Amino acid sequence: MHPSVVALGGGHGLAASLSALRLMTEHLTAVVTVADDGGSSGRLRQELDVLPPGDLRMALAALCDDSEWGRTWRDLLQHRFSSQGSLNNHAVGNLLIVALWELLDDKVSGLDWVGRLLRSRGRVLPMAAVPLEIEADMLVGDQQFTVHGQSLVASTAGHVEQLRLVPHNPPACPEAVEAIMDADWIVLGPGSWFSSVMPHLLVPEISHALHDTSARKCVTMNLGTSVSETLGMSAADHLSALRRHAPNLRIDAVLADPSSVDDTDLLVDEAGRLGARVLFRQVRVGDGTARHDSLRLAAAYRDVFDDFLGDVGLISS
Amino acid sequence: MHPSVVALGGGHGLAASLSALRLMTEHLTAVVTVADDGGSSGRLRQELDVLPPGDLRMALAALCDDSEWGRTWRDLLQHRFSSQGSLNNHAVGNLLIVALWELLDDKVSGLDWVGRLLRSRGRVLPMAAVPLEIEADMLVGDQQFTVHGQSLVASTAGHVEQLRLVPHNPPACPEAVEAIMDADWIVLGPGSWFSSVMPHLLVPEISHALHDTSARKCVTMNLGTSVSETLGMSAADHLSALRRHAPNLRIDAVLADPSSVDDTDLLVDEAGRLGARVLFRQVRVGDGTARHDSLRLAAAYRDVFDDFLGDVGLISS
Repeated sequence: MHPSVVALGGGHGLAASLSALRLMTEHLTAVVTVADDGGSSGRLRQELDVLPPGDLRMALAALCDDSEWGRTWRDLLQHRFSSQGSLNNHAVGNLLIVALWELLDDKVSGLDWVGRLLRSRGRVLPMAAVPLEIEADMLVGDQQFTVHGQSLVASTAGHVEQLRLVPHNPPACPEAVEAIMDADWIVLGPGSWFSSVMPHLLVPEISHALHDTSARKCVTMNLGTSVSETLGMSAADHLSALRRHAPNLRIDAVLADPSSVDDTDLLVDEAGRLGARVLFRQVRVGDGTARHDSLRLAAAYRDVFDDFLGDVGLISS
Repeated sequence: MHPSVVALGGGHGLAASLSALRLMTEHLTAVVTVADDGGSSGRLRQELDVLPPGDLRMALAALCDDSEWGRTWRDLLQHRFSSQGSLNNHAVGNLLIVALWELLDDKVSGLDWVGRLLRSRGRVLPMAAVPLEIEADMLVGDQQFTVHGQSLVASTAGHVEQLRLVPHNPPACPEAVEAIMDADWIVLGPGSWFSSVMPHLLVPEISHALHDTSARKCVTMNLGTSVSETLGMSAADHLSALRRHAPNLRIDAVLADPSSVDDTDLLVDEAGRLGARVLFRQVRVGDGTARHDSLRLAAAYRDVFDDFLGDVGLISS
C-alpha cells in the first residue's frame, strides 16, 4: 500500500522532493511556503494582492502526468514571457493560478483545477491562507540587522538568529492541516532552509499539527551550502536551526548525501537530539552538481519509509 | 450526416454563428479575422509581435464543451484581470494562446491545444498567418479620409468606400484554405461588416478558395445597424458592399431576421444579384436586443441547409 506523504517546502527544493516522491506514492500532498516577494510572484502579489503563486506553480509542475498532455501543460505553466514590456518574465502558470483564484474565489479549488489540468499525481496546497512576509534577525559580521522579505533573507550572507512571519500568527490552510494530521510521513526539505523549509514551523496551526500528528517525519538535507542565507552552516547547523525554532518537534529520520556532510559525527549527534536516525544515501545527480536525482532520491525515501515499517511490525524483519 | 461547415468572421458576430452551428454539426471550423489592434489583443500584438489572439479566443470559447470542465476553462479564458497595473484588462485566454504559440512555435497547433483544453466542438483557425491591419477609404460627410486600423475603422461613423489589408497580399493559413475547399457550407457573418466579415475576401488565397469551392454559401445578416462603420446602411447595402469587394462571388442563401430588414424587396433584389435566395427567420433573442438566439439561429441554419439538400436531390422533395 502506498504511504500517505506530505512534503513541506518551496521552490526548487520542494520540486526535487516531489519529483522523487511521485515515483513511490499516489497519496502525495505538497504544503508550500507562500512568502515569495520577488520576480513574477512578487509583482503579481503587489499588483493583484494575492498569494504569491510561483512556488505553488513549481510544485504543480513537478507533479504533472508523464504524458504528452501533462508535459505540454507543464511546459506552458513554466513558460515565461520575454519582452521589452510589462509581461516580461511573468510565468504563464502564475497568471493562470491567479486568474483561477479570481474566477473561483477559492484558493484550494483553483489549485485543484490546475492539478486536474496537469492530471497531476498528488495535491498542492498553500501553507497559509494569506500572503506572508519573512523577517529575520541576522548577524552579518558582528552587526545585527533585521532583514525583511523572502528574497532579501535568501540573498543576505549572514547568520540567521531568529526567523519571524508577518503577519505573526497567520491562519493556516485548513486542508494542509488536515493532510498533515492524516499523513503516514512528513518530508521537510530540501530547500532554502530559512526562506522555504522553516517558515512552516512558524504558522501556528501547521506547527501544532506537525507536533500532534502521528505521522513520522523525515528531514531531507540540502546538497550544497552555496545559498547566501546558510553560508558557512554545517549540516548539523541546519538541524540545530530547526531545533531552535521548534524545540519540541520530534524528527524520525534525516536523509543525507554523504558527499554533502562535512562532519558525520556532528550530524548524527544533532539528529539524535531531535530523536532521529541518519540515513546516508547517494542522492546527488551523476554530474556532481548540487541537484537531487529523482530516482536515487525516490529509492532513498523508500529505504527510509521501509526501515520504519519494520519498526512498527507491519513487515517482518 | 452532419454537414461540414466553415464560419467566417470575428468577434461577437462569429461567436453568435458558432454558438448556433455547434448545435447542429460536429464538423465545424471557424476562420477568424486577425486584424484587431485594440484592447488586450492590441497590446499583446505590440508587446510580443504576435497575431492578435482576442477573436480567436472568443471563437474557441463559443465552441467549448457544455460540461463543468468545458465551462470552467471557457470562463477562465474569458476572465480579464482588473488592476491599477499593467495586467489590467488582459484576457487570460489571450495570454494562454500567445504563450502556446511561443512554446510550440506553431499557430494552428497552439489553437488546437486550446481546443483540446476546452474539449471544443470544432476547430478555430486564423484567416492569415501574419497580423493584419485594416485600412479603409471612408466618406465622412463629403470629405474622403483613409482610416487605419480595425478599431478606428469600426468606430468611425462614415461610408466605407474601399477596404484594404496591410500587408496587401498576406499569406493565408493553409488549413483555413483547405477547410473552405472541403466544406459543404460556408457561413459569412453576422459581425462588424467591414472590420470582421469582409476582410476574409481580401486575403488572396482565402478569396480564391471561396470562389473555387463547391461549398454553398450563406450570408447571415446583422440584427442592428447601430455600429458606426455601417451607420445608415440598409440590409441591401451590406450585400452590395460585399458584391463591390468580390464581384464574382456567388452566394446561395441570405438569412435575415424580418425585424432587421427595412426594405424587403430591396434585400431580395440585391440578394438575387449575388445569386442568393433570402430566408426570413426570427432569430433575435426574446428580449428584443440585437443579439442572435443560439437555438433559433441553429434552427434557421438547419432550414437553410435542408432547403438546398432538397435542391441537389439528396432528399426527395
